[in-house]
Formats: sequence, structure tokens, C-alpha cells
Amino acid sequence: MKNNLSQRAIVRLTQYHTILRDYTKKNIKNITSSQISSLLEIDETQVRKDLKSINCKGKCKVGYDVVELKDIIEDVLDYKVIKKALVIGAGNLGTALSGYSKFSDYGLKICALFDIDSNKIGEKIGEIEVYNLNTIEKYIKNTGVNIAILTTPNKVAQEVADYIIKSGIKYIWNFAPTILSVPAGIHVWHENLIGSFLQFCAIENIL
Amino acid sequence: MKNNLSQRAIVRLTQYHTILRDYTKKNIKNITSSQISSLLEIDETQVRKDLKSINCKGKCKVGYDVVELKDIIEDVLDYKVIKKALVIGAGNLGTALSGYSKFSDYGLKICALFDIDSNKIGEKIGEIEVYNLNTIEKYIKNTGVNIAILTTPNKVAQEVADYIIKSGIKYIWNFAPTILSVPAGIHVWHENLIGSFLQFCAIENIL
Repeated sequence: MKNNLSQRAIVRLTQYHTILRDYTKKNIKNITSSQISSLLEIDETQVRKDLKSINCKGKCKVGYDVVELKDIIEDVLDYKVIKKALVIGAGNLGTALSGYSKFSDYGLKICALFDIDSNKIGEKIGEIEVYNLNTIEKYIKNTGVNIAILTTPNKVAQEVADYIIKSGIKYIWNFAPTILSVPAGIHVWHENLIGSFLQFCAIENIL
Repeated sequence: MKNNLSQRAIVRLTQYHTILRDYTKKNIKNITSSQISSLLEIDETQVRKDLKSINCKGKCKVGYDVVELKDIIEDVLDYKVIKKALVIGAGNLGTALSGYSKFSDYGLKICALFDIDSNKIGEKIGEIEVYNLNTIEKYIKNTGVNIAILTTPNKVAQEVADYIIKSGIKYIWNFAPTILSVPAGIHVWHENLIGSFLQFCAIENIL
């Protein structure tokens, strides 16, 4: 990353980028901070501050150039850098993530799936093959891929995490709703979909 | 919600709760703010402040009672209140979310799936049936369910969102990586898995 951005600023920039992607597809040339602000329900001053922090300058009454702004965000957040990852667990969620073609637009390339189910091993999800989990150490050694997307059932998540870390994984994007305990130097991003939904409910006061 | 919590505090409380769930299963009776702090890499003072804000008091050298703390968080965040939702799109992601049995532990009950694919209509994911999307208005009228989990392909997400809003949906948990434009009074939570991963990459400086 080229800028020293806070975690919250990164979250907002990825949201701005999603809008810019939509606008590019619709061939819309310009966007104002007010448009971004109203789509995301974020204060307009905040939007302007964020864009100024990455050296984007809007034009009075015209706004920002969509393509230029999109390009700057992609550069700042390193979207163009390819990040190779392995999916652990070839169930519905692992399959959904592997088939999510949009990932590649953002530099995420899923190289392989790993599972312990002999019925799944050898199958292909699109172009991505499912391998036996017990071959992952060799795979990591040969390819250098060290990011894993963990989609196993909750009850085996810690055990599988221990195993893949021992095999060479350094970064885990964890979809199992459990907090993994990992050694120093290993990084975990806890996705926890349930937590995400509960935040939605709590924030929107859904009862 | 019983307390006036910030969005960030809600996020942290849901994370604490995930740990407490794990501890309950392992039959561990007490937890310290230092343990929570080190598992989540959150400042210990922040943890103590959060727990104080929901009236949880730890005991010196013993920490917090796991069951009691879990119970208080569930109460504050309304986990025990049943929230009924419909899944739109019976693809891999919709199927994964519908089969995610853990959702029900947090008060989320997925009542039905909706799709336009005649091969999928009539199928069952566990106990949950897939219905024709064109019957959703009637379903909402009969049941009052007004939360939708949108898992359609990106390119039809806006069109489908318009349709289900017209049919009576008020809250959308959107998994399509696009920012939906919705009328006033309709609430959207943009999940955007790609954005989530990119934040992970940016924060951890994965290159």
C-alpha cells in the first residue's frame, strides 16, 4: 500500500470503488462526492476528505473523473497486484467462492481447492481442481501460495487451521464462525457472516 | 437494542460473543479481558470499556463469567429475537447460506429460497424449499417476512432488488458486489466479499 490509510478509510475506499465500477460499466463519465455520499449514506465531507487523502481532485460542479478515480483507488489499494489463494473446503461456500469470477478483477486468483472427501477430490469447479488436503504442504512448497480461504465446518476449523499453518500458510481468511488461535506471525481475517448479519440487525434495529 | 452502541462497538461485541460461544462449548468458566484482547488483537482497555458499557463486571484475577457475559451480549444485541429472512438466488452462495445451521443459533431463520430457474424451483435445501421468484409478493403478504438475503449474479442484482422491494421487502443483506440504489425507507447492508478480502490484503500488506 502506498498510503498510510486507516482500516476504516480502506473500507470506505473499497466501497467507493464498487460504485465507480458500476459507473464505468454504465459509461458514466463523472461522479460527485454528493452522489457517493447519498449512495453509501456516508457524510459528504468524509468522502471529500478521503479522496483528497489519495490526491484525487474533483472539479467544481462536474465532480470526479470516474475512470481516473477508479484507477487511483486500484493503485492505492494494490488491486492490480495478483494475490494467489487456496480454498480449504469444497462444500457449498468453498464452491461459491471459487466460482466467484469477480474475484479475479480485484487481483484475487484462487489456484486450488483442498478437501478430505474422496468424492470431491479430483473434481473441478470451473478450471479449479479439488486436491486432497494431505497434499497441501507439497503444493505450497511448489507454488509459494500462502493465503488460505477457510470454509470448513466450524468444529474442524481450528484443527484444519493448525494443519495448514504447519504446511506453510501464513494468511487465513476465515469463514468459519469461530475465533482461530494462531501462532505469532500468522494473520487471520475473521469473516464471520453471522456477526455481519447481526450487526445489520442491531444497526437497523430489525426486530 | 437496549443500549445506544456505536456500529464499531456492535462489531466488537459480536466478536467477543464468538469467543464466548467457543469457551462455553469447551466448558471454560471464566475469561479475562486480556484473553479477549490477545485473541482479537484489540486493546485491552477497549475490551474493558466495552464490557463496562453493557454493565458487565469482571472479578479481579478471575475475569468475567463466560455464561453470564455471553447471556448479556445476547440480550443487548437481541440475538434471542427470531429474525425471519428469505434467500434470493438458489446458487452455490444462496445454498451455502441456507444450509448454514449456525444462523439459527443467532436468531436468524431462513424461511424460503426464491429463484427463477425452473430446475431449482421445488427443490429443498435441508428443510427450506425453493420457490418461483414470481410468487414472492404473495409469500411476503402471507408471512410478513421482510428481510431478503440477495445472492443473485451481479448483473441482475439491481433488477431483482427493485422487484423484491416492490413485493414488500424492507431490508436487504446484499452479497452481490454492486451498490444497490433503493428508495427511502429501504435498508441495505452491502456485504461485498471482495471488498472484505481486499481490506484484509491492504491491512496485512499482502503483496
